[in-house]
Amino acid sequence: MLLKKGQKLLFIGDSITDCDRVKPDGEGLFGALGRGYVSLVDGMLQAIYPELGIRVVNTGLSGNTVVDLDKRWQEDVIDRKPDWLSIMIGTNDVWRQYDTPFIKEWHVYKDQYQTTLRKLIEQSKPLVEGIVLMTPFFLEVNRSDAMRNTMDDYGAIVKQIAEEYGTYFVDTQAAFDVVLKELYSATLAWDRVHPSQAGHVVLAKAFLDKLGFQWNRG
Amino acid sequence: MLLKKGQKLLFIGDSITDCDRVKPDGEGLFGALGRGYVSLVDGMLQAIYPELGIRVVNTGLSGNTVVDLDKRWQEDVIDRKPDWLSIMIGTNDVWRQYDTPFIKEWHVYKDQYQTTLRKLIEQSKPLVEGIVLMTPFFLEVNRSDAMRNTMDDYGAIVKQIAEEYGTYFVDTQAAFDVVLKELYSATLAWDRVHPSQAGHVVLAKAFLDKLGFQWNRG
Amino acid sequence: MLLKKGQKLLFIGDSITDCDRVKPDGEGLFGALGRGYVSLVDGMLQAIYPELGIRVVNTGLSGNTVVDLDKRWQEDVIDRKPDWLSIMIGTNDVWRQYDTPFIKEWHVYKDQYQTTLRKLIEQSKPLVEGIVLMTPFFLEVNRSDAMRNTMDDYGAIVKQIAEEYGTYFVDTQAAFDVVLKELYSATLAWDRVHPSQAGHVVLAKAFLDKLGFQWNRG
Amino acid sequence: MLLKKGQKLLFIGDSITDCDRVKPDGEGLFGALGRGYVSLVDGMLQAIYPELGIRVVNTGLSGNTVVDLDKRWQEDVIDRKPDWLSIMIGTNDVWRQYDTPFIKEWHVYKDQYQTTLRKLIEQSKPLVEGIVLMTPFFLEVNRSDAMRNTMDDYGAIVKQIAEEYGTYFVDTQAAFDVVLKELYSATLAWDRVHPSQAGHVVLAKAFLDKLGFQWNRG
Amino acid sequence: MLLKKGQKLLFIGDSITDCDRVKPDGEGLFGALGRGYVSLVDGMLQAIYPELGIRVVNTGLSGNTVVDLDKRWQEDVIDRKPDWLSIMIGTNDVWRQYDTPFIKEWHVYKDQYQTTLRKLIEQSKPLVEGIVLMTPFFLEVNRSDAMRNTMDDYGAIVKQIAEEYGTYFVDTQAAFDVVLKELYSATLAWDRVHPSQAGHVVLAKAFLDKLGFQWNRG
Amino acid sequence: MLLKKGQKLLFIGDSITDCDRVKPDGEGLFGALGRGYVSLVDGMLQAIYPELGIRVVNTGLSGNTVVDLDKRWQEDVIDRKPDWLSIMIGTNDVWRQYDTPFIKEWHVYKDQYQTTLRKLIEQSKPLVEGIVLMTPFFLEVNRSDAMRNTMDDYGAIVKQIAEEYGTYFVDTQAAFDVVLKELYSATLAWDRVHPSQAGHVVLAKAFLDKLGFQWNRG
Amino acid sequence: MLLKKGQKLLFIGDSITDCDRVKPDGEGLFGALGRGYVSLVDGMLQAIYPELGIRVVNTGLSGNTVVDLDKRWQEDVIDRKPDWLSIMIGTNDVWRQYDTPFIKEWHVYKDQYQTTLRKLIEQSKPLVEGIVLMTPFFLEVNRSDAMRNTMDDYGAIVKQIAEEYGTYFVDTQAAFDVVLKELYSATLAWDRVHPSQAGHVVLAKAFLDKLGFQWNRG
Amino acid sequence: MLLKKGQKLLFIGDSITDCDRVKPDGEGLFGALGRGYVSLVDGMLQAIYPELGIRVVNTGLSGNTVVDLDKRWQEDVIDRKPDWLSIMIGTNDVWRQYDTPFIKEWHVYKDQYQTTLRKLIEQSKPLVEGIVLMTPFFLEVNRSDAMRNTMDDYGAIVKQIAEEYGTYFVDTQAAFDVVLKELYSATLAWDRVHPSQAGHVVLAKAFLDKLGFQWNRG
Repeated sequence: MLLKKGQKLLFIGDSITDCDRVKPDGEGLFGALGRGYVSLVDGMLQAIYPELGIRVVNTGLSGNTVVDLDKRWQEDVIDRKPDWLSIMIGTNDVWRQYDTPFIKEWHVYKDQYQTTLRKLIEQSKPLVEGIVLMTPFFLEVNRSDAMRNTMDDYGAIVKQIAEEYGTYFVDTQAAFDVVLKELYSATLAWDRVHPSQAGHVVLAKAFLDKLGFQWNRG
Repeated sequence: MLLKKGQKLLFIGDSITDCDRVKPDGEGLFGALGRGYVSLVDGMLQAIYPELGIRVVNTGLSGNTVVDLDKRWQEDVIDRKPDWLSIMIGTNDVWRQYDTPFIKEWHVYKDQYQTTLRKLIEQSKPLVEGIVLMTPFFLEVNRSDAMRNTMDDYGAIVKQIAEEYGTYFVDTQAAFDVVLKELYSATLAWDRVHPSQAGHVVLAKAFLDKLGFQWNRG
Repeated sequence: MLLKKGQKLLFIGDSITDCDRVKPDGEGLFGALGRGYVSLVDGMLQAIYPELGIRVVNTGLSGNTVVDLDKRWQEDVIDRKPDWLSIMIGTNDVWRQYDTPFIKEWHVYKDQYQTTLRKLIEQSKPLVEGIVLMTPFFLEVNRSDAMRNTMDDYGAIVKQIAEEYGTYFVDTQAAFDVVLKELYSATLAWDRVHPSQAGHVVLAKAFLDKLGFQWNRG
Repeated sequence: MLLKKGQKLLFIGDSITDCDRVKPDGEGLFGALGRGYVSLVDGMLQAIYPELGIRVVNTGLSGNTVVDLDKRWQEDVIDRKPDWLSIMIGTNDVWRQYDTPFIKEWHVYKDQYQTTLRKLIEQSKPLVEGIVLMTPFFLEVNRSDAMRNTMDDYGAIVKQIAEEYGTYFVDTQAAFDVVLKELYSATLAWDRVHPSQAGHVVLAKAFLDKLGFQWNRG
Repeated sequence: MLLKKGQKLLFIGDSITDCDRVKPDGEGLFGALGRGYVSLVDGMLQAIYPELGIRVVNTGLSGNTVVDLDKRWQEDVIDRKPDWLSIMIGTNDVWRQYDTPFIKEWHVYKDQYQTTLRKLIEQSKPLVEGIVLMTPFFLEVNRSDAMRNTMDDYGAIVKQIAEEYGTYFVDTQAAFDVVLKELYSATLAWDRVHPSQAGHVVLAKAFLDKLGFQWNRG
Repeated sequence: MLLKKGQKLLFIGDSITDCDRVKPDGEGLFGALGRGYVSLVDGMLQAIYPELGIRVVNTGLSGNTVVDLDKRWQEDVIDRKPDWLSIMIGTNDVWRQYDTPFIKEWHVYKDQYQTTLRKLIEQSKPLVEGIVLMTPFFLEVNRSDAMRNTMDDYGAIVKQIAEEYGTYFVDTQAAFDVVLKELYSATLAWDRVHPSQAGHVVLAKAFLDKLGFQWNRG
Repeated sequence: MLLKKGQKLLFIGDSITDCDRVKPDGEGLFGALGRGYVSLVDGMLQAIYPELGIRVVNTGLSGNTVVDLDKRWQEDVIDRKPDWLSIMIGTNDVWRQYDTPFIKEWHVYKDQYQTTLRKLIEQSKPLVEGIVLMTPFFLEVNRSDAMRNTMDDYGAIVKQIAEEYGTYFVDTQAAFDVVLKELYSATLAWDRVHPSQAGHVVLAKAFLDKLGFQWNRG
Repeated sequence: MLLKKGQKLLFIGDSITDCDRVKPDGEGLFGALGRGYVSLVDGMLQAIYPELGIRVVNTGLSGNTVVDLDKRWQEDVIDRKPDWLSIMIGTNDVWRQYDTPFIKEWHVYKDQYQTTLRKLIEQSKPLVEGIVLMTPFFLEVNRSDAMRNTMDDYGAIVKQIAEEYGTYFVDTQAAFDVVLKELYSATLAWDRVHPSQAGHVVLAKAFLDKLGFQWNRG
């Protein structure tokens, strides 16, 4: 387990991270962390590694793109002084190109995505012990589907940046693809984007496994 | 993993099982299974054993005692024809003795608890492939606390019945006691009864481990 | 225009037909016909053929399968004595096989679909002047997608029955496929099932064109 | 069809244009364009001319008079840089003279109406490719009715300004008068002002026809 | 003043009488009589003739036609044993012919209106001390308007029945016509049917004056 | 009738005047004038003197004392430029002395009441055609009741100021006392302060009679 | 203290007893006993005599008269098998005579009050250990006030019945009269009927003192 | 009784003091003082010492620690000029250490607690006639429970400060411990923190007794 006693682990992202977390501060009791993978990660750390006392913070915000993250990076990431930082962004950057194709200013194209994400990593890398970069994903099994195809491109950008900067990397799309071999996408997400509980388990597991989490610690 | 492809796994219990599940039928999409350990079990089975296609059903009902289960056993358990049956009951049987001590008819004492639970097992055992008996629990670390003490007695009854009838047995109190060594009870449950997400992970893990669940199946 | 002065035109179906119509009687002012294609058909008939005085009735019900239609056919179709009857059913018959695959009793497979739909046509054919059979559809452009594939099978059943019984036939999937060449499915339907206003225009136009509707009557 | 690929078409007006559009930005999915003729125009363009990718924006605001438009013209029209601009205003300018006759400052009389509307056209004409001026209307068939009479005067002002400036002109009152020969006004609008779905079809059709829209493009 | 000490005065009618009265029993404190002319009559009687102690009851029901009154006549009129009975009905009988012309079964034509109203008078005449028949009205000044014209016909039927049976007769349309000479109809009623406070004063005054009410009793 | 064509009549006061009027501007349609005597005065003027076109404005505010009126006098009275001004204030000035006797700063004693009211009259007298001063009242028939006794003192102050400045004067308490001879106070006001419809008729009548209003103008 | 260990004490009455208690069973945690004197009695017994374990039940119902109690006596009193029974009824029996004087069937006059109350006592006396009869009250200090006068008569009836049957008797009016010497009635009850917290303390104290309750038990 | 005629008694604290009081000013009628011990103290003073006319003010605020009190001390205590001041604080200072142990900045440790409380006393002592310091409490009977143990330490600090500065001191924990001998903690508080009505009686009694309150004044 890479996380150490008393560390603060901060998640940032879009609605998949947000999941009805409490605003403005996504931490504390009574569902403050929302109902998604962040809460699952927190629950599993507390239940299975209680002695570590990891402090989990959720600053996901529905509808955000990487451009929105950039605007609130100082306040919602740097000022909160996390030891570990997890970023999963890109869904809306891509989705708006497909669901509201005529409103161009809502789209974040690859160049801007890459540049902005890189900038965020550069600003944060020196300040934290570890960064986990999670790819965005699309729960569509057909890789030649237009939106899946674009999402894969954004995932590739995430992977490349992770390698460049030496951060941890979680390929959420790959994790989902395993499950999609058995289950049709509608079982995991009504709209192919917002996961069910099972989908959030996939995300939490992919994240935790990367950090050396052991279900049975014996 | 003891569960087999296409089997139906039914949970029954009180508010800890219920957790805002949809009524009358606690299954399907959109949070129909509630927000507790049942939904976690379902999510983990679907995410990690997707090929099994386990159908999870939640028939927990807030405030129920074993006497209430008895009244709806035919309709909510037998008629639904589960392959596997999980029962966690007893919280309210004990709690009412401590929070409303003057209203005796709300209490279910040990004799009635034992007799009724045994009756339910006898009615169901021949009809299912497996039964999992989970003890009730109280998130109080002090074993000489009056209510914890009583709850332990009810847990012992569950254990004894499990042994008599050869069902699977999950000692939830023991699972929690491990975590309570590290965390004060208020972290896991506001009122020492209704668990946080971390508490539900403890329950889900104890349940799944008993059935041979593997986090990493490789 | 096939509709004649003073005739009653009744639509039945699932949520795509329902669209928040008023219950129990889906006719009258103030949005009683819902917000979907039925209301569009009504609006266009009243605006462009006002002298015909066509009475439009909406008896769509969210979540319905052909089996549900069968249960309320006497009350919601025959007793209302329509002159024209439009049926679009099958979405949920197919969808449940893909979004809740483990709950088999929620599925309506091809045999039952075909048998039941045929029964409904036989009961109604002698009582009305015309029947319009509309296929169910799935806003997925990839025809080898599992659910699209199945939906196409159900559409083929509708076509076959329409031919057998000599009813009017509207291939909604074909109508959508034309638009999907230009627009990604997410533009037309958040979940690939429930259409936007544009999607309802596609449905209304396909329906009206089949009946000889002229936008410019000159 | 006068509209060209990728153009932005902006509608401004009062409650008949507004129709519960989303504020502050009336564009995007999920009914953002409201439930009136603007949404119908958008739906028909997307359904029948999907390759054009016309971006429709609704900035109608309930209760507005031409004086209110003037106050927000920079922000809600010019700053949004439309290619095409549609204006339908005047209902409240006239109505307040008849429903609250004693509150004079709520009235916009002909002179002010004409001056202000002319000012708006002059400000916008050079910035857009086309302007569509739609008359206000009153769903009263009796032309000697006092309010209908006044509304016709305002319609005449719109017509005159359209001719002066060479904008497109839609005579909505004339379009409704055709339908009112067949249907009593109460069928089209509860209060003779706010149209039913059929009334909005009349508006959308009058608008689209003026731009060369073809229902069947073959 | 025709009303005598301790008498019960019952009003029945449609939404104009109902005006949000309390159900099922429209009498008592706290707005139980609704916000229309019935409450005004009650207020004026209590304020100016307090020693009479007149008990006012409101059994108006929104949407009612004379056919609906017939169905509840025993329960809502005869069983309540009024000394005086006021009836104002016909608005919806006529209106439905104009706002939903295609739904014929919602219309009550003249013959049925006359026959049913006569039947109600015959049933009640012997049981009460006095009956007040109020005409329905339409706040449209143009007598050749189709709906106004029809409403006048219904008013004439009421007048004729009043004369035949020797009941009191209130010509509400005539009372409104006086005011409509000065005020446009929209000032008195948004939809030409449901009066403002001023409109209800017109109704209350016409009713009270007929019974010999004196504003200044001196 | 003292009011002349086209004049504006403004009412100010406490909750008895307010009566759920619309804020911030208490005028217009749809109950904007509230449900009390102001709306009754407006309705009677419009119904019986429609040719006068009197514009009625309600600026009453629940809980106000004369001190509160003073704070908003410029904005809510002078800036609105009424021709006629009606003031009824004092209920809360007195009531707080009796229902929250220990919170002295909520009380307005006689000296301050008199001084402030006089100041308001002096500021407004030159600006309007007429002022109507209405006494506060308490619906308690026993004149030796402590609060009734105090309220009478405040009424006497109003009377004295009216005489000094030559304004119109309405003795609301006297008007109510006539009715209280016949009806127990609970019939007119649940709490002896907020009148029923009958109580508001008493107020409206006392006001209108003072201005020369004729119920029958013949 | 007359109450003995483990006894059940049941209160019945009108809104003053009800005070938003939980329905149908007014006992248990979370405000189930309402917010009035019943809850205060319960709180004081539990806080100061915790070893007695008195079970308090509230079956008060808003708006009830003695006639209403009669209708539910078997179900709400006898079937619940109290050891002690407290009755406070009569407020509405009297009040309706004063606030809705014209609706005679809502009044319960003295004869019926006396007869019915006597009947209830006779039915219950043999079944309980003790009955406490509390008078109704009216927070009006002027004994010649009509409603106070009538209420005193009803109080006298209660006293007489208490003496006849040898029940405990609490003169609530007398208890309030002491406080009313110092505080104006509006301080204790907005409407002279429903007491503030202080008023409920008066009631609880009068009740408890009669049973030998000691604030300081030492 | 130490309180004198006309004095103002102000309570400050956390949610146990707050109890849904009205904001911003916790005084007046209609439950403005909340539903806890403050309202009970007020009710008992008014009911039993009505001639004193004590003015009770509640400025408790849910979630507050002593650090929060410090921030609003000027505005909520000093500016309100109380004669008597009661402080009960510390619950959240301790609780956050146990329910959210990882969020250190939410904790108020002993040093800061002591320093801040002392500062508040020093600021207020010279300005008031008397200060009552009430300990925080935890309804846990087991003194070796970690949180009870810490709470006792904070109580000891309160006691020490009370002695140093010569304020009145109320040992709420001791008062509760007496009752907890008879009743399990769940009877008095669902979560061992927020008392039931009985728990608030314990607090009110401990407070009042310290001030020389007599239940029976004779």
